[in-house]
Amino acid sequence: MTVSHDSMANAIRALAMDAVEKAKSGHPGLPMGAADMATVLFTKVLKYDASAPHWADRDRFVLSAGHGSMLLYALLYLTGGQGMTIEQLENFRQLGSLTPGHPEYHHTVGVEMTTGPLGQGISSAVGMALAERMLNAEFGDIVDHHTYVLCSDGDLMEGVSQEAIAIAGHLKLNRMIVLYDDNGISIDGPTSVSDSVDQIKRFEACGWNASRIDGHDPAAILAAVEKAQGSDKPSLIACRTTIGFGAPTRAGTSKAHGEALGAGEIEGARRNLHWPYAPFEVPGDILETWRAAGVRGASARQQWEKRLAALDPAKRAEFERRLSGKLPAGFAAAVQAFKEKAAGETAPIATRKAGEAVLAALAPAVPELITGSADLTGSNNTKVAATPAIAPGNYAGRYVHWGIREHGMAAAINGMALHGGFIPSGATFLVFSDYCRPSLRLAALMGLRHIEVLTHDSIGLGEDGPTHQPVEHLAALRAIPNLNVFRPADLTETLECWQVALESAHTPSILALTRQNLRQVRTSVMQDNLCARGAYELSAADGHANGPAQVSIFASGSEVEIALDAQKLLADKGVAARVVSVPCMDIFLEQDEATRRRVIGDAPVKVAVEAAIRMGWDAIIGSDGAFVGMSTFGASGPYKKLYEHFGITPQAVAAAAMARHNG
Amino acid sequence: MTVSHDSMANAIRALAMDAVEKAKSGHPGLPMGAADMATVLFTKVLKYDASAPHWADRDRFVLSAGHGSMLLYALLYLTGGQGMTIEQLENFRQLGSLTPGHPEYHHTVGVEMTTGPLGQGISSAVGMALAERMLNAEFGDIVDHHTYVLCSDGDLMEGVSQEAIAIAGHLKLNRMIVLYDDNGISIDGPTSVSDSVDQIKRFEACGWNASRIDGHDPAAILAAVEKAQGSDKPSLIACRTTIGFGAPTRAGTSKAHGEALGAGEIEGARRNLHWPYAPFEVPGDILETWRAAGVRGASARQQWEKRLAALDPAKRAEFERRLSGKLPAGFAAAVQAFKEKAAGETAPIATRKAGEAVLAALAPAVPELITGSADLTGSNNTKVAATPAIAPGNYAGRYVHWGIREHGMAAAINGMALHGGFIPSGATFLVFSDYCRPSLRLAALMGLRHIEVLTHDSIGLGEDGPTHQPVEHLAALRAIPNLNVFRPADLTETLECWQVALESAHTPSILALTRQNLRQVRTSVMQDNLCARGAYELSAADGHANGPAQVSIFASGSEVEIALDAQKLLADKGVAARVVSVPCMDIFLEQDEATRRRVIGDAPVKVAVEAAIRMGWDAIIGSDGAFVGMSTFGASGPYKKLYEHFGITPQAVAAAAMARHNG
Repeated sequence: MTVSHDSMANAIRALAMDAVEKAKSGHPGLPMGAADMATVLFTKVLKYDASAPHWADRDRFVLSAGHGSMLLYALLYLTGGQGMTIEQLENFRQLGSLTPGHPEYHHTVGVEMTTGPLGQGISSAVGMALAERMLNAEFGDIVDHHTYVLCSDGDLMEGVSQEAIAIAGHLKLNRMIVLYDDNGISIDGPTSVSDSVDQIKRFEACGWNASRIDGHDPAAILAAVEKAQGSDKPSLIACRTTIGFGAPTRAGTSKAHGEALGAGEIEGARRNLHWPYAPFEVPGDILETWRAAGVRGASARQQWEKRLAALDPAKRAEFERRLSGKLPAGFAAAVQAFKEKAAGETAPIATRKAGEAVLAALAPAVPELITGSADLTGSNNTKVAATPAIAPGNYAGRYVHWGIREHGMAAAINGMALHGGFIPSGATFLVFSDYCRPSLRLAALMGLRHIEVLTHDSIGLGEDGPTHQPVEHLAALRAIPNLNVFRPADLTETLECWQVALESAHTPSILALTRQNLRQVRTSVMQDNLCARGAYELSAADGHANGPAQVSIFASGSEVEIALDAQKLLADKGVAARVVSVPCMDIFLEQDEATRRRVIGDAPVKVAVEAAIRMGWDAIIGSDGAFVGMSTFGASGPYKKLYEHFGITPQAVAAAAMARHNG
Repeated sequence: MTVSHDSMANAIRALAMDAVEKAKSGHPGLPMGAADMATVLFTKVLKYDASAPHWADRDRFVLSAGHGSMLLYALLYLTGGQGMTIEQLENFRQLGSLTPGHPEYHHTVGVEMTTGPLGQGISSAVGMALAERMLNAEFGDIVDHHTYVLCSDGDLMEGVSQEAIAIAGHLKLNRMIVLYDDNGISIDGPTSVSDSVDQIKRFEACGWNASRIDGHDPAAILAAVEKAQGSDKPSLIACRTTIGFGAPTRAGTSKAHGEALGAGEIEGARRNLHWPYAPFEVPGDILETWRAAGVRGASARQQWEKRLAALDPAKRAEFERRLSGKLPAGFAAAVQAFKEKAAGETAPIATRKAGEAVLAALAPAVPELITGSADLTGSNNTKVAATPAIAPGNYAGRYVHWGIREHGMAAAINGMALHGGFIPSGATFLVFSDYCRPSLRLAALMGLRHIEVLTHDSIGLGEDGPTHQPVEHLAALRAIPNLNVFRPADLTETLECWQVALESAHTPSILALTRQNLRQVRTSVMQDNLCARGAYELSAADGHANGPAQVSIFASGSEVEIALDAQKLLADKGVAARVVSVPCMDIFLEQDEATRRRVIGDAPVKVAVEAAIRMGWDAIIGSDGAFVGMSTFGASGPYKKLYEHFGITPQAVAAAAMARHNG
């Protein structure tokens, strides 16, 4: 006896409404409305094996509408996902459960991505679909899967979704299939309160296939997905559904969206759905059928493993290394070779150009490193010989022209990192980190190796003026937990910061680089990576390391040379000053207290200089330390004049130090 | 003898290439490509009077592609804009000139908005067009103008533009006309490198008219604009142009975009354009014709002034008050009446509910106050009886359902503030301030009265978990210059913070409000607005103001009650503690030093408590002060359990104080 589709779908609906009811918090509407779509996907479409959730070639499923988390948790329970017991569903939204309010990557096995902030899931899925094609271009058909997305009205209203679908359509990512839960309801009421977009036409305008079906008709869903699988474009399937399907009075209304239904509605829903079972009870035959669906991909997975085992051993080893996230054997040697070359460099150079030199040296040794830019290739300097650009339909390459889409870029990079096989990086101006902050935050929350090269990192960019000059951005990015902001001072520091970024497997990194030339401040070759400590004494007082100093000057990036010049001015006045370079404040503040104390030193006067706001620096110089930097927005003019105008000069640093020294 | 269109347009081209050449920096490509569009607009279409640049009913012109600033500066010079001399053009991009790299509102007369960050201009223009209709609904045909936008590929690639065009199409803002400089070139090369979007179809999908014309054909431009003026929808006119039109080898290439052309190209362009004049020279007849165009709207303006003078005096006075930005006479009384009511309130209440009560009391007295929400109306609590919603074609209302479009909302609110006549506010969750940061930054840079009600302001939102719990956002927003972040602790503080926000004519404000209930901490009626000082002693040690205290506890918002409870715990141990409420750190740190010292006090132990990161607090408690708050992302669970889990409790505050007191 076979279990009907409706029974399978109703198991999802019942678990979702019961869990939300027990938590007295959550979103029953989406799981109940999208249960038919999910049932077709997880029982008939998706290539996966619940007993091997990390199978590299599994289809990816992203619940972009993360508030419908109970849909995913119910699916994980029903298909036999690791650790997903009925008790976990009963503990929905409780501290420490595997079932938090929104799905959390790394926290719950089977969750491909942390979602909840709308628009992020669909946009990161673009990166997954791209990574799949790029890995396929490199390793062949051992990589051969689809990326499915379930998204909501909110996902499609968020602007980032436009950036995502535009680049996905442009790149012809035909293995991306989006099911849109087109329920016509948002929190404020019918979507007609705020929206009139013809989504079919919009997606078609962006190079997608798009169709509309009844989202409660399993045959229609299956047919639409199968058609999409054969397309040469990405596909949108708009599925007309009823939010809270089954609930007697709340179905089809915004009341079904984001709160517990209440006992009466749930009783009525059980009647309407012919689901007479107790809360959290799934009858044996239904559960068995679901569990069987959960492992229907097992033989495909085993065949894939055989194919993998049959690959050329070197190719297989490289493929496995790539998926493991381990850096290649040649990495350390490439780093050291560059250090030796860099130490001999004496010409002034912008750190964005230093970054280009680093990439030119490391990219050949690290084939998983992908670079790109949001239409600032010649300014960000992230394209090198080893990173040719990909193109629509041709994914053999290592560079992505993202277009003027910082947010879509950062979201897609998250998806590439989540997919595995790559260390993806993007690039834009530092000031435009504001445009992609939601994705950077998610990278930090998920612990992804996501690298952003953010150039033009201060008023030092000059004439473009205050709209383009970051002032608060270093502080605002340092504020994000588990995100490292690097601001190297020269060629060697740029190499060292790139090295730490590449080695940080679970922390995203920002490389803040200058437009303007800086002189080389590190001229001796060292085995150690000094930037890996976050801060270090670059120039001791009187030439003796940790020698007695009357003044400590702390600086990052372009202001390190100002600090060194101030040190000389102070020496001329008989004041012994040391200079501490602070390429990564985040890492420095995580060092043990003894290390921090040693680097900060005990000079009675502490001065920090950074062409940005003070916020954050007090942790190093104390609230009684002197700070030379910015407190307002910048201005348009040649950069040397701006440094003078805003008083960020060796003279100002020396004067601030002298005032405290004498005061 | 009439001057030809080509000569008029070539004056723009020549000034643009000459100014960029002299500055050796800037963007000649757009002004040269868009000169024909601009010439038609400024000589035949736009309703304006260069001799009265602040005429309230002028058509608005927004150069969304702000990098093409020389287009605007050339137009201002040619039409006789205030202060825009040839010397200013010669000082393009120099410190202190009226011609900075990107157009700056308030800095240069005639610049309607600061642009440069792409996507912002077109999105704020939606707010201008909306403000025009809403003011028209209120005051009639004395408000009757269009909003024109000149945008670039980059503007349309940025996601915020999708949010903007979707809401503009939905609201049928038919007085918005966008000319798209469709030159097919971006920095990385042809736009085909990264884009395949059919913009005509995309705009149509969003409820716009859209057409494509030759952007160098003045008759076609005029015809398209005139057609658009008669439409019942907003209109896109895609104008095919050649970037750098006239430059012999760089025209039509990305080399024309963002750098000086060089002497050879400029010589060739002069030949191609039949422009034999010296750099910065505009022949008399051409300049005269331009100057005449600049005042062709003078009689219309004078007639408008007559119509204004003929209005009912009360209506005219109110209209003029509204445009002046002055608050109404009844404002102070409404504030005081609420204070008296609030002081009697004893029931615990969430500050988002307190905000609703404040709005209910103040909105009737402040008719220019517009509220709204990005689809969180029931959660943000910003809709009250006095603010009925507007709808497509019906602009009599004071509430906007923005949809799930935080960025588009914030950008449009900038436009409403720029237009004048309103104090616009928006609302979403605090964590989603990340989605609209570029617009918030521009609001701060432009000095706009833009208010955002950002609720669910900490882990206190509970079960929605880390994706929805702000941790770093208070610091990241406080980091923006000229932006005030308010975090009130109860009903009275919420009123006071709203009052300061409404009175801050040139500074945007964030109101960070709780989801969870808080108890009332201010129970006496005062004339003074204590929150206007940023911080104040809420509870003295031993009951005596500024009395001898051994511990000072600083807190904001929901942690103020924790501070008060800690004060009691310390009193039980014989330790005298005072509590300082810090509803606005930004304002507090701008007080004079004596005031700051007095409020900070001289208790030897300083503790701050805020359910967010420490960054910024050192300015008050010193780097040796104790901080009780967050250092990681949050978690999903009931909020009281989260406060326990993360150790943000009266006990933890008291323990931190005791450790320093004893240590």
